[in-house]
Amino acid sequence: MTDTIGLLHPGEMGASVGAAARGNDGQVLWASEGRGPETRARAAEAELTDVETLSALVERSRIILGVCPPHAATEVARAVAGQRFSGTYVDANAVSPATVRDIQRIVETGGASFVDGGIIGPPALTRGTTRLYLSGTESARVAACFRRGPLEARVLDGPPGAASALKMAYAAWTKGSAALLIAIRTLAIHEGVDAALIREWELSQSALPGRSAGAVRSNARKAWRFSGEMEEIADTFAATGLPDGFHRAAAEIYRRMTDYKDAAHVPSVEEVASRMPAGAAPHEVTAAR
Amino acid sequence: MTDTIGLLHPGEMGASVGAAARGNDGQVLWASEGRGPETRARAAEAELTDVETLSALVERSRIILGVCPPHAATEVARAVAGQRFSGTYVDANAVSPATVRDIQRIVETGGASFVDGGIIGPPALTRGTTRLYLSGTESARVAACFRRGPLEARVLDGPPGAASALKMAYAAWTKGSAALLIAIRTLAIHEGVDAALIREWELSQSALPGRSAGAVRSNARKAWRFSGEMEEIADTFAATGLPDGFHRAAAEIYRRMTDYKDAAHVPSVEEVASRMPAGAAPHEVTAAR
Repeated sequence: MTDTIGLLHPGEMGASVGAAARGNDGQVLWASEGRGPETRARAAEAELTDVETLSALVERSRIILGVCPPHAATEVARAVAGQRFSGTYVDANAVSPATVRDIQRIVETGGASFVDGGIIGPPALTRGTTRLYLSGTESARVAACFRRGPLEARVLDGPPGAASALKMAYAAWTKGSAALLIAIRTLAIHEGVDAALIREWELSQSALPGRSAGAVRSNARKAWRFSGEMEEIADTFAATGLPDGFHRAAAEIYRRMTDYKDAAHVPSVEEVASRMPAGAAPHEVTAAR
Repeated sequence: MTDTIGLLHPGEMGASVGAAARGNDGQVLWASEGRGPETRARAAEAELTDVETLSALVERSRIILGVCPPHAATEVARAVAGQRFSGTYVDANAVSPATVRDIQRIVETGGASFVDGGIIGPPALTRGTTRLYLSGTESARVAACFRRGPLEARVLDGPPGAASALKMAYAAWTKGSAALLIAIRTLAIHEGVDAALIREWELSQSALPGRSAGAVRSNARKAWRFSGEMEEIADTFAATGLPDGFHRAAAEIYRRMTDYKDAAHVPSVEEVASRMPAGAAPHEVTAAR
């Protein structure tokens, strides 16, 4: 029997992490107070144990995993520290090493030990798709909770910050290059050269017609939560003395796609392009629903 | 016999364009005044006819092709217009549609007609690798100079600006994504997670280890002339209301590699990374030669 784990919160990714830990004979707790019906449904499907309140979760967990959109990572850690959690807190979010160090300070001040985590891959349903990278002294203890099952835990030889730096570097390409492709197709459409670009790509960059259309299709409805991650990546570049413009721009592209959150349809490249440029602020973009 | 063409100037790309035009029974002139020994050697190899001065070239050419680094494009057009050239001027440089319109105004004021050109591909040595896109009313006349031979001319259905917009959109990916990969490897090396990143890429993005190393190897010695092109692309994005940060950042990455111009060795990723960050200005970077 591994340590009892508390999970904050069962989003799509978090629920898969919780299910993976539960599959190791671990009990995984969550706190339903203030959460919506979709979160409850995911937690039920992942067979997580509802302890209702954060204070009950803190009291009963040896390890707490924070899995949430990057903009909420610090706030979640602060809530846990406010309950004087004295176990091991794992921040598994897509945040910069600097944000990780802030979170470490917050949870250690509250009395906990800290492990930095970074998840690479889609929600873990089958083994081989998704890895949880860990760094910090208690990493092996956390990794033990995932010995079997779909999520592969890997301990990095480095201090807290290393796992998040790896996640930042990885997503800098996957989500950064997708935003670049969306921007390029938008430019080409507005300049009247999109058909010519596609023909040239077919000759000399044959993966790009499909990849650019896929960048729109698979990211439109998730874009709302990518802009925060792009800002964290930009901060990571800036902290190393590298230009942060790639990912400030990527954040802006995804911000302009925010209204596709929960959209009933997957938009075409042309639809996204037509709503994208001329400096439209998110609130000026209206997705056809 | 096609129109006599004047070529300004036989750089690596320009010489291949000149040789391609000459191969169509065309006479291709160039002006050696003020040019260095490398340019002379390339012109001789391409069998271009040296008329020594710009004024002789303007007097004898029906079509003038400007092929040079983007920062020099406007200056070259101004020199031609200053000689009252009354034929067809083709700007075949990697510049923004707005720069194209400036150049068009300059050469038309001088009495010439104007065609916008954009070259996609490496210097044209064998047919199929490289295309010269053309837009503007005299495009077909220019395309006729390249009917046979290694450079394929394609006329776009659009005004001056279309060919350059296509070139900008194309290079936005090729050179923009290469700069992003160089930046990501640099970040990973400075954060101590490069080996972990390579291992993760081998699992889930298997092209990237080789592609990122190739981005350094094949671009280091050419980077000095990429920063101007990246700024033109950034201007093109901004003029359409799109974020310009991707290519401002790419320009900065290539600027920091400027000192590898004419370097005797091809640097490793690690060498470039070690010289890259901490906001080093170009003059602070010293390439081992």
